[in-house]
Amino acid sequence: MDLYAERGFDQTTVADIAARAGLTERTFFRHFADKREVLFAGSAQLQELMVAAVRRAPPSTPAIEAVAAGVAAAATVLTDHQFSRQRQTLIESNPVLQERELIKMARLVAAFTSALRERDVAEPWASLTAEAGIAVFRVAFERWVKGAGDRTLAEMILEGFGVLRTIVADPTPRDRS
Amino acid sequence: MDLYAERGFDQTTVADIAARAGLTERTFFRHFADKREVLFAGSAQLQELMVAAVRRAPPSTPAIEAVAAGVAAAATVLTDHQFSRQRQTLIESNPVLQERELIKMARLVAAFTSALRERDVAEPWASLTAEAGIAVFRVAFERWVKGAGDRTLAEMILEGFGVLRTIVADPTPRDRS
Repeated sequence: MDLYAERGFDQTTVADIAARAGLTERTFFRHFADKREVLFAGSAQLQELMVAAVRRAPPSTPAIEAVAAGVAAAATVLTDHQFSRQRQTLIESNPVLQERELIKMARLVAAFTSALRERDVAEPWASLTAEAGIAVFRVAFERWVKGAGDRTLAEMILEGFGVLRTIVADPTPRDRS
Repeated sequence: MDLYAERGFDQTTVADIAARAGLTERTFFRHFADKREVLFAGSAQLQELMVAAVRRAPPSTPAIEAVAAGVAAAATVLTDHQFSRQRQTLIESNPVLQERELIKMARLVAAFTSALRERDVAEPWASLTAEAGIAVFRVAFERWVKGAGDRTLAEMILEGFGVLRTIVADPTPRDRS
């Protein structure tokens, strides 16, 4: 991550990364398919952790609360503000990495939707609740990494679900007569 | 589109498309950068149309209603169920096209967020309202193209905003004492 931040993603070779980590290139490729993988190595575990939290919510929990628990679970591991910030800067500087991040988010939505369907949440409720939850995650995460690091991601997520509530709470157009 | 449906995207060449349309390859490339472009040719105009509708909403309109107007504008042009259905099948069969669709949606969110900021909507309200609106659009569109075509996209979108309201309306965990 430091190397990417120093040189930029495209300018950093696998040989550089391996050398910095004290590995041979061969060992590197035993762990990661390519240099992009390093950035997304934790993604699958993060998704598992988040989906497990949705599944763990008691059956009587409203769908949005189950999803909120899933999103909150991410904040238990995403605690290194500086690391996340560097990673985000890097991703935003590279269209290929941005695409990968978008795919990761789309997969999270799909996984949340499946978890909700297992809880007998019907469509379009399942898809929309999953989308809404990941929207809160995405916005909270971006605000967190771009912020000064004085507030935790958990706080940002909680605030996000509160804001979502106020946004749709009274959407009746005002009477202008 | 017919050609893509018949042969699959990867098996269809620009020469095939040009021949079917009665064009030379040279004329084709004057209009489209590559064969992918044909599928996304209307995307920029669609985004413009949607963002213009957000901007046109009176200043007193709540942000979610302005976004709902923007999403509803899409339904005025997305009326050809069979075409949209074929296009969707094709996109789902090809990871590169899926990525492109994800990028298109991310751009829409960014454009809606900007339009809301111009209306003096603060963060994180602007981002979250834009995300929520595009979530409704995405889910409504998918249900529409996968459905029998007996309901319009406009109806699906209206239903989606209603569902979003019920999802977050009473998120208080029930008392289990």
